[in-house]
Amino acid sequence: MSFWIGVDVGGTNIVCGIVDEKGEVLDSIKKPTQAFLGTSSVLDHMAQMVSEVTARAGLSGKVAGIGIGIPGLVNPWDGIALYSANLNWRDVPLSTELSRRTSLPVYIDNDVRMYVYGEAVYGAGLGVDYVLGLTVGTGIASAMVSQGQLYYGYRDLAGEIGHGTMDGESAPCGCGFDGCLEAAASASGMVREAKRFIAEGKPTLLSQWFPGDDLQRLSAADISKAMDAGDSLASDIMNHAGELLGKALVPAVHILSPQVIIIGGGGAMAGERLLTPLRQTLMSRLLPDFRQHVTIKTAVLGDDAGVIGSAMQAKQRHEIKQS
Amino acid sequence: MSFWIGVDVGGTNIVCGIVDEKGEVLDSIKKPTQAFLGTSSVLDHMAQMVSEVTARAGLSGKVAGIGIGIPGLVNPWDGIALYSANLNWRDVPLSTELSRRTSLPVYIDNDVRMYVYGEAVYGAGLGVDYVLGLTVGTGIASAMVSQGQLYYGYRDLAGEIGHGTMDGESAPCGCGFDGCLEAAASASGMVREAKRFIAEGKPTLLSQWFPGDDLQRLSAADISKAMDAGDSLASDIMNHAGELLGKALVPAVHILSPQVIIIGGGGAMAGERLLTPLRQTLMSRLLPDFRQHVTIKTAVLGDDAGVIGSAMQAKQRHEIKQS
Repeated sequence: MSFWIGVDVGGTNIVCGIVDEKGEVLDSIKKPTQAFLGTSSVLDHMAQMVSEVTARAGLSGKVAGIGIGIPGLVNPWDGIALYSANLNWRDVPLSTELSRRTSLPVYIDNDVRMYVYGEAVYGAGLGVDYVLGLTVGTGIASAMVSQGQLYYGYRDLAGEIGHGTMDGESAPCGCGFDGCLEAAASASGMVREAKRFIAEGKPTLLSQWFPGDDLQRLSAADISKAMDAGDSLASDIMNHAGELLGKALVPAVHILSPQVIIIGGGGAMAGERLLTPLRQTLMSRLLPDFRQHVTIKTAVLGDDAGVIGSAMQAKQRHEIKQS
Repeated sequence: MSFWIGVDVGGTNIVCGIVDEKGEVLDSIKKPTQAFLGTSSVLDHMAQMVSEVTARAGLSGKVAGIGIGIPGLVNPWDGIALYSANLNWRDVPLSTELSRRTSLPVYIDNDVRMYVYGEAVYGAGLGVDYVLGLTVGTGIASAMVSQGQLYYGYRDLAGEIGHGTMDGESAPCGCGFDGCLEAAASASGMVREAKRFIAEGKPTLLSQWFPGDDLQRLSAADISKAMDAGDSLASDIMNHAGELLGKALVPAVHILSPQVIIIGGGGAMAGERLLTPLRQTLMSRLLPDFRQHVTIKTAVLGDDAGVIGSAMQAKQRHEIKQS
């Protein structure tokens, strides 16, 4: 039995877990990222988490390698974190640096791909050959896993489902376009939309719950709560987000032909509030051959998805390299 | 040196060519399909074309296998033509039947995939790792070739870019939806649109060129001709088709990240009339990372694309099977 370390690096926290070769997480620890201390400090910190979780599991000397999921642009093949706004990293030779600190082979990749790979192969997509994973959180991104293999595309850019102006949409997006899926249907997009409507004076429970400057604390979970309390603005925002997600998935399904679509990330916490309009819109627009065979599921692994995905992707890449 | 036969089966003609292992067509013949004579007759006919082209090239006994591209739904792995409206075929065990008649291994696949594979690996996409091919003809379809491998998806359904209602569009489509890309931007869709506008009494050179029942003979090439003669209805139809193709390619590029997009099929004969609005719309809506790296090309192999694609795909599958 070999063991692998999976590290999910986020802007806020780092989760580091030890995973057996069946994809079971044996133990994991979660600590603040503290990116403001600088790259070298974060790397030292990661190396320390790796030895801590290994020692705690009593598996020192039995770990075969490390997989890391990083937000932003990554060159997985040279092990370089090209650009990460969340971490304020640019061209960090992550594999080399962490390998030097741990004396283990290190494989890195984009965090969404690792999350989707974990869910597709060991979570909600277990046993399914063609899985499309969609993460709805601060941003919206996707990845496709076909017969156990991630699809990367040219320059590893595939899966950018969140951008490009959608007809009739106008919410300003961080990418510079207006009317992108991410601008209205991501967790942060829904919050931005709610604030925009409140600023326009639209009546909603949310402005009672978060008067004045308190509005800064508004989260996507509060929109779910307001919807449950019968708030029509919250309902409208959630329904609209679900419909847009459904619309954006139509070409993705027709082009990729997944058997299962997994909806994950923080936004998936909205559950059926988001999935019902998503499913209705998607299914009503798919060709019959696709409609009959595609299933929509929510992610099941939570925080573990990124850890399992990173660890098992490192295992797969290591085995290919050795063969 | 091994040699391979590629057969491109269409509703009207069958093209059968002999291809060397570098993907060069040495000789080919083209004959009417005559599907009305029945499946068995078409199969006999195909076997005869195979031996004719082989004998003519002086390569009897030196052919390693046959690849066939068939319109419609195909199960490539079991060698079955599941459904082809053009040929009026349903569940034809094509590989077995042609193999029995020729004593050669036979590999079959969908005709668009074979056409795109030929163009991607031996034509306009030569030397490029990530190629998206789009055929604009009677229908609209696509296929993705990544690092020399076709992408199939679940039930081999991937690449259906032509369907699903586009916002603001209403032209009725053969699939049952309204406002599909195929309804307005395929060669036959453009002709249907022109006839619809003429029936509504819109002024155009086309109604002068094709008065009364002559209108049945209107083709997409006539729309190009009218456009060149300054006809504004023809221009509008062509521009609109190009813009819709560009719009439909936005999610395809963001999801698949191709390096080159090849536009092929009969509709590509419109050339820059179609490509200029396509390119403008696509490029204005892509994220910068994609816009900077993607190139649009027209197909270069003509009729040979399907022959080369079928023959070389058969070679690839045969080698995998033997290894």
